[in-house]
This record gives sequence, structure tokens and C-alpha cells, in this order.
Amino acid sequence: MPIMTASAQTARPRPAEATAAEIASLVGGELDGPADLRIVGLESVERAREGELTFIADAAWAAAWPRSKASAVLVSRAVELPPREAGLEPAAVIRVADADAAMIAVLERFAPPVERPAPGIHPTAVVSPNAEVDPTATVGPQCCVAADCKVGPRAVLVAGVRLYRGVVVGEDSVLHASVTVRERCVVGRRVILHCGVAVGTDGFGYRPSPDGRGLAKVPHIGNVVIEDDVEIGANTCIDRGKFGATVIGAGTKIDNLCQIAHNCVIGRSCAISGLVGLAGTVTIGDGTRIGGAAGIADHIKIGRGVTIAARAGVMNDIPDGETWAGVPAQERTQAIREAIAIRRLPELSRKLRDMLEDR
Amino acid sequence: MPIMTASAQTARPRPAEATAAEIASLVGGELDGPADLRIVGLESVERAREGELTFIADAAWAAAWPRSKASAVLVSRAVELPPREAGLEPAAVIRVADADAAMIAVLERFAPPVERPAPGIHPTAVVSPNAEVDPTATVGPQCCVAADCKVGPRAVLVAGVRLYRGVVVGEDSVLHASVTVRERCVVGRRVILHCGVAVGTDGFGYRPSPDGRGLAKVPHIGNVVIEDDVEIGANTCIDRGKFGATVIGAGTKIDNLCQIAHNCVIGRSCAISGLVGLAGTVTIGDGTRIGGAAGIADHIKIGRGVTIAARAGVMNDIPDGETWAGVPAQERTQAIREAIAIRRLPELSRKLRDMLEDR
Amino acid sequence: MPIMTASAQTARPRPAEATAAEIASLVGGELDGPADLRIVGLESVERAREGELTFIADAAWAAAWPRSKASAVLVSRAVELPPREAGLEPAAVIRVADADAAMIAVLERFAPPVERPAPGIHPTAVVSPNAEVDPTATVGPQCCVAADCKVGPRAVLVAGVRLYRGVVVGEDSVLHASVTVRERCVVGRRVILHCGVAVGTDGFGYRPSPDGRGLAKVPHIGNVVIEDDVEIGANTCIDRGKFGATVIGAGTKIDNLCQIAHNCVIGRSCAISGLVGLAGTVTIGDGTRIGGAAGIADHIKIGRGVTIAARAGVMNDIPDGETWAGVPAQERTQAIREAIAIRRLPELSRKLRDMLEDR
Repeated sequence: MPIMTASAQTARPRPAEATAAEIASLVGGELDGPADLRIVGLESVERAREGELTFIADAAWAAAWPRSKASAVLVSRAVELPPREAGLEPAAVIRVADADAAMIAVLERFAPPVERPAPGIHPTAVVSPNAEVDPTATVGPQCCVAADCKVGPRAVLVAGVRLYRGVVVGEDSVLHASVTVRERCVVGRRVILHCGVAVGTDGFGYRPSPDGRGLAKVPHIGNVVIEDDVEIGANTCIDRGKFGATVIGAGTKIDNLCQIAHNCVIGRSCAISGLVGLAGTVTIGDGTRIGGAAGIADHIKIGRGVTIAARAGVMNDIPDGETWAGVPAQERTQAIREAIAIRRLPELSRKLRDMLEDR
Repeated sequence: MPIMTASAQTARPRPAEATAAEIASLVGGELDGPADLRIVGLESVERAREGELTFIADAAWAAAWPRSKASAVLVSRAVELPPREAGLEPAAVIRVADADAAMIAVLERFAPPVERPAPGIHPTAVVSPNAEVDPTATVGPQCCVAADCKVGPRAVLVAGVRLYRGVVVGEDSVLHASVTVRERCVVGRRVILHCGVAVGTDGFGYRPSPDGRGLAKVPHIGNVVIEDDVEIGANTCIDRGKFGATVIGAGTKIDNLCQIAHNCVIGRSCAISGLVGLAGTVTIGDGTRIGGAAGIADHIKIGRGVTIAARAGVMNDIPDGETWAGVPAQERTQAIREAIAIRRLPELSRKLRDMLEDR
Repeated sequence: MPIMTASAQTARPRPAEATAAEIASLVGGELDGPADLRIVGLESVERAREGELTFIADAAWAAAWPRSKASAVLVSRAVELPPREAGLEPAAVIRVADADAAMIAVLERFAPPVERPAPGIHPTAVVSPNAEVDPTATVGPQCCVAADCKVGPRAVLVAGVRLYRGVVVGEDSVLHASVTVRERCVVGRRVILHCGVAVGTDGFGYRPSPDGRGLAKVPHIGNVVIEDDVEIGANTCIDRGKFGATVIGAGTKIDNLCQIAHNCVIGRSCAISGLVGLAGTVTIGDGTRIGGAAGIADHIKIGRGVTIAARAGVMNDIPDGETWAGVPAQERTQAIREAIAIRRLPELSRKLRDMLEDR
């Protein structure tokens, strides 16, 4: 009986294991403790149990160390580690310059191996005879691939993925469960689309209906182009262009539940956090970062290397390299001055009212 | 031919019926009107039709009563019911201490019976021979259950549900259509995951790529643990931990379209409204409530029994029991003082400008 | 082998083509350039290539014209077109009163033809023998249609659509991939539900549990009624009524990722942008427009023809025809006065502090 082949990040029956000495060597750290201590898992300071390694990069995490049950800790040299409470076993301590950076190396060491699903088309998938699926690609259970689609080498459609007519998926891309890609959209190479992503929905565009009382749909005949090495979070939506393409530049990462409206053009290596909304025809330069739940009004142009704070509401173009915050958003130092002035406003109002009464 | 078996809340051909006397008895109320009046449905004051019962818990709803076509009304004793317009039939009136509380009892009386789908695996489902599905569980049409999964007694995967490798689903849980649960995540007992929920997506974590020009993915080797009696709304996303678990505590309810980032730990019996976003590693104590579209910055610690207002943007830790509001959020009385001061600001500015000119 | 039949907006192997003269005639414009120039596509000013037509409706777009590679431009008469840079071919220019309005006519001319999928039930779909599917309707691959459902003439369930028990879908409606409609909800005629829409999830309603320590679910026995000609964006969620219906009025358009809570009643021909959240029992009059990421508190009543700005937080009823903005939202001229006063606040505070020190 056919089974669901798992995607890139699959499980192993057992977690990876390593000795304290192996980890110290991996991160170039100094080990204080037993070299042969076996590390069987990674956890936060507060939740770690015996046999687990934890990470302390700053004083805030160190404060929880006295009660931690971790058997080992990877700690930044700048952090003073307080003594543990009585009754807890002494822990192995690995000291490094930057525990956050070292953590990534350890995560990569402990990450389950990439288990490539077997290539081929699952018998429950529905694939048009007019689609081209590379023999090394995987089309998982209950996927649909319509006519004129092309699925490249080693691409994986995990399960329940639907490609409408004329979609192209590049090599080594992974489309997770319930992803949908509408007509004629293009997904590049090494792209990851997480569960429930909707690519290529019609943009939100209407005109007054002929009787003047309602709204008539404006056709959206463009598409979406997702360039190489893009990653898009679960249930995020990217609308197709009215004409031309909505473009997600190479290497850009978008978090869960974002709304990217029709004809946005996002540059390369941007990072867009969860619940962000871009209205129509927003342009964003390379390397720009946008904090969670921020929004950008239609037709706004954002430069390269810009930082937009979480929850900002952007209604003006932003030049290269600036940091903006607030609603309506403005340059960060202005935004901070304003936030401080607002916080002092009740006191200021009271003083002013007293003064006006004094006159 | 196999059919889709419906989930916990299923339809009945006819709505439940009851007499006015039965309802008065059910809610411990005083009936003024015909005891044998047949109630065939429930509706709001404005939309109710003949044969239907409505609810009036306060003066705002009572204002619409004169034109209501309802045949019966369940009303809080503290509310004065105005006379109905001429031409409308007199209605049965049931008086109780608290019409809102009584309404819940009536809803439970009228709720369609729970119609358990037949146990077993639908022929269109794809289940790994290495998965353990309890014989009393239901795996509906077009579901996928990968290797090393366990599906407990009486659990229901409605349709198009995909469990990646190593997922555990506890007894009596219901996973609605198009739910996805990624590798090694754990779903407790009596959990409800509504349509399109995405559990266990990789967190949004990157490091600079070796060439310094882009972003490299940080592995997320943790998982998500959803404890017993949790309910999660449609299309909500819960990311897996970078290491360790993202935890949703027992009895917590999360509304639609929320974003819960990697390594958040949410306590027991919390209520989180729609479109809320929690950044990474947020900790929330038991019994905390968060209003719609609020957001919490990463690494923030929220106490027990905290209330966070809708649309608040929380950037500081919040002690137990406090109520916070605003952006950036602050204690509620401060937030209200500030909001009032802002509302008076245009007038205050004008006065101050006049005064400065006078000098 | 069965293939996925495409939905209303399908691709064609080649884009539509037209001559410059045909387009000038279509939009009633004056052509300055070769009548037989072949237009093979439409693109924005900045991205257009040889053979493509672009649109310039205002000075902002005109600024990019000197470097545009478009072969033709449709321009509003009020806009002065700057000369093109040396080395670019001269372009055909079509002048009209309003390039934006003309663009819609051109989009409709270039839109791929509506390719009706073949009627019938795909062999991988699971349809209850107790469901009524019109013989002219299409039930695509991996759809589920439960007992007591009715699917009307020419309705299309594209793929992976799940209708729970007792759902009605009207004629000519299109439900895209992974749409879910819960028990007893009603979808009208000519409705479009985009990918991942979740209709009829239980509302977010709880009461204290009997032990006083947790939350017990309040039954939601109502449904959702989506009237004719409604369009709902990808991954938007519409909760069922606690009792009675959540109603989306005829001709209303809702964008992606919106949350419409239980018992909201939205009028006709409204337009609601992405990431908007309506709390429970919100009422909205006909023809009202709501900007992106705005939110409305529970039980609020919004009039007809109201405009609510993007990111507004509405906590009060709004009379017919007004425009509101801000958090908490207020009438627009007040909101603008307040926004200006806030922007001047740091300077004002400084002056006031100086003055207080002077005394």
C-alpha cells in the first residue's frame, strides 16, 4: 500500500546524539566537565531535562540557570553563570564567544537527515497527460497537476497540492500539504512553500457595475513569479498581477499569514514577518526587513536595506537604508521622540491645564 | 459508495423543537404566555420570525423588540421590555436573572446531536503500514497518515487531513478538513483543530548566508505540543520549536487566523482572539485573555490571569492579573489616560499656540 | 486518465493579441503611431518589454516612461509624457480621457476565455448518494460532498473542496481548491470562494466551565449565508452564527485573510480589504468599504456607504456615509487633526517645557 512520503524535514526514530566533547569541538568552545557526557537532546533553560543541552546567550536566560535540569550548557563567555541549586547534578559547561551563533551549528548537527521521498507520482494523484513531471520529482498523494504544468527535477509536491493549468515548479522546490498555485504562476528553484500557501489568487480589484449600484470584477490576467530560494510561510497569500507579475525576489523569506496583493514587486533577500499586509503595487528593495503585523499602503516604494518595525503602518515612500516605525510610519528617531512625547502627554496636559487656570 | 462522515457538530434534517413551558423550565424562568407554544428555532431580535425564540440581555437589544417578529423572548429581569408595534402577535415572555447565561442552556438543548462518524479508514485515505490507527478512530476521505503516526481511540480526521511522520493524535480529538500536522508534533485528547490549521511549520529563523549577501535557514528540530482540550480556529498557524517544543496549554482556546511563532509556551485555559500574532519565545501564564489583532514581541513574558485589549502591541513583560492596552501597550488606566489626552490634544495644541503667541 | 479541469480563469497557450488600432478603437482613444503594431502583452511601465502595452494614468507613472521598453502606451490626456531616452524605439501612444478606466476594457479584451470544466463528478471525488449534484455541475478531483448537500447548475468545485452535511451551493458558483464549507451553510449564485476559504467554523464562544477553572464551549448551532455574487479571498474565515446566521450580503467582496466572526451581518456591495477582522455580531450597511487590517469591535453597527480607513480600530457605531480613521477610530477630519497634532507634539512639548522653566 502506498504511503505518504515525508518531505525535506523528516523525523528519525531517535534523536541525534553527541558527546559534550564532540559539541565543544563542533563550536570551537572550551569544555568544563566530562568529555564523554552523552547529549541526547536540546531544550530551553527552563524546560531542559537530564541528558539535554541548553543555551545561555545573555543574562536573562542565565537567571533561570540555578533551577535548570540540563546536563550541559553552551554559554557566551560574557555571561556570568550563577551557581545551581543544591540537589542538582553539576553540569558540563561549554564556553564560546557567542552562544546564539554556536546554537545554529549544534542545531545543524542535531537536525534530522533530509529524507528524500521516493520519486514518482502517487497513485492517488491526478496528473494531466499534458503536464511534464520530471522522473526524479515526487507528486505525493492527492495532488493535482493540471495541463501544461512543468514540475522540475527533484521537486516535491508533498500531499494535496494543487497546481492549476500552466504552472511551473523549479528543481528541488518543496510544496507542502494543501498548497495551491493558480494558473500560469512560476515557482523557482529550491523554493519552500509551507502548508496552505495560496499563490496566484485574483487580486482585489473591482469597478462600479454598469447599473452603478454594485461592483464588477476587474480581470487579473497577470501571474506570480517566485524566484529561487524563496521560503513562504503557512497560509500566506500572494495575489496574481492585474497585468504583469507579482514578484517575490530570490532568497526572500516571508512568514505565516501574510497578504501580498497584486503587482507587488519584492526584492532579493528580504525578510517579512507574520501577519504583514502589502497593498497593491508596493515595491520593496533588496535586503529590506519588515516586522510582524506591519502594513504598507498601495503604490508605496520602499528602498533597499530598509527596516520597518513591527505594527508600523507605512503611507510614504522610504529611502534606502532607513528604519521606520509607528502609524503613520516615520523615521525611527522621530517615531521614538513622538512615542516618548505621547507617553508624557497626560502629565503635560495636566500641567498645561493648571497653568491656563493660573492665568 | 463511501460517503464523507460528518464530524462532531453535524446537521439534522429538522431543528430541535420545544414548547415555551419546556424552555422556561430548562432555564428556571417565569413564563408569561401560552405554555404549549412551539419554538422551532432561535434567532436575533431583528431577524427572528414566527415560531422563533429570541434573547434580550440588555437595553440595546430591547430597543429592537417593538418590531421583532419572534414568537417568544427570553429576557433578563432587569430589562424593561417595550410594547410591540400594532399588528404583531403577542409573544410569550420568559423572564430570568441573566438571559445570556440562559441562552447557553437553550443552545445546548437545541444543538444537533453529536453524530459520530463510523470508525475506520476511508478507502481514499493513504495510511502508512507503519502508522498505528486505533480501530475506533475515523480516518476520513483523502487523509494521509505517514509512518510512525499514532491516532488514538475515537479520534476523527475529517477529510483531507495530513499527518506527517511521527505525529500523535490523542483520543476523541477532531481534526477538520485540510488540517496539516508536521513531523513529530503531538496533539492531545479532546482537541479540536478547525479547517486549515497548520501545526508544526518551521519557525521563521535565518542567519546571514556564508557569502554575507543573503539568508540561510536555521533548522527547526523541535516540535509542537498541543495539550488536552485545546481548540484552535480555522487557518491558524503554530510553528514548531527551534529546539524544544512550542506548547499550547490544556484547555486553551485560540481563534481563527492567529500566528503562534516558534517556542511560544502558552499556559492553561487561555483565550486568544482572531488575528493575534505572538512572536518567537513568548511565554503566557494560565487564564490569560488576548483581544483580537493584538501582538506580542519576541521573548516577552506575560503573567497569569492577564487581559490584553484588542489591537494592543505588547513590548514589555506583564505581571499577573493586570489589564494592558494600547501601542506600545501599558497598564489599562494609564492607557486610558493617554487615549483621553490624545483625543484632547488638538484643542490643547490650539490653546497652547494661542498662549505662546500672546506672550 | 482524468485530469484536473481548470476553473473560470484559465490559461491559454498564447496570450491574446491585438493591433494598436484595435486597442485605440476599443477604448475610444486617439492613436499616434503605427496602426498595425502588434501588442502581445500588457505590463507596468518599468517592466514592459518590446511588443507590450503599458498604462500611464498619472505623473508618477509618467516619470518612469523615459526608460520604458514598452512598444505602446495608453495614457490619460491630462498627463504630459516626457521624451524617451535615446536608443529606445519610438512607441505608439494612445490618448484617452482616463487611462485607468481604459485599462479595464483592455484587460477584458486580453483576459483568457472562460474555459468551463467538463460537467460531472471526478472519479476521485467522494459524493454521498444522499447529495444532489446537478448534472451540469463539476465536482473536481478529491472533493467531498456529504449527505443532504445540493450543488446547483454549472457550479464548480475545483479540487479538494469539502462540503460538510447539508450545504447548498448555488448555480454558477466556483469554489477553488481546499475550500471548506461546514454543516448547513448556504452559498448563493455566482459566488467565488478562493483557495482555502473556511466557511462555517464554530464561533469563538465559551463560558466558564462548571469547576470554574476553565472554559466550556458554547454550541454554535447557526450557519453562514453567502448571498449571490459574493467573492471571498484566499484563506478568509467566516464563522457560523451562535444561533441564526452570519450573513454576507449580495455583491459584497472580501479580500484575503479576513476574519468574520459569528453573527456578523454584512450588507450588499461592500468591499472589505485584506487582514480585516470583524468581532462577533457586527452589522454593516450596504456599500460600505473597509481598508486593510482594520478591525471592528463586537456588536458595533456600521451604516451604509461608510468608509473605514486602513488599520482603523472601530469601537463606536458609525452613521451612514461617514469616513472614519484611526485607533480608536473617529470621523476622518477629527482623525486628521489629531494625527497632525501628534506629529507636532514633540516640538510642542519642548516649547512648553521651556516655558514652564522660564516661569
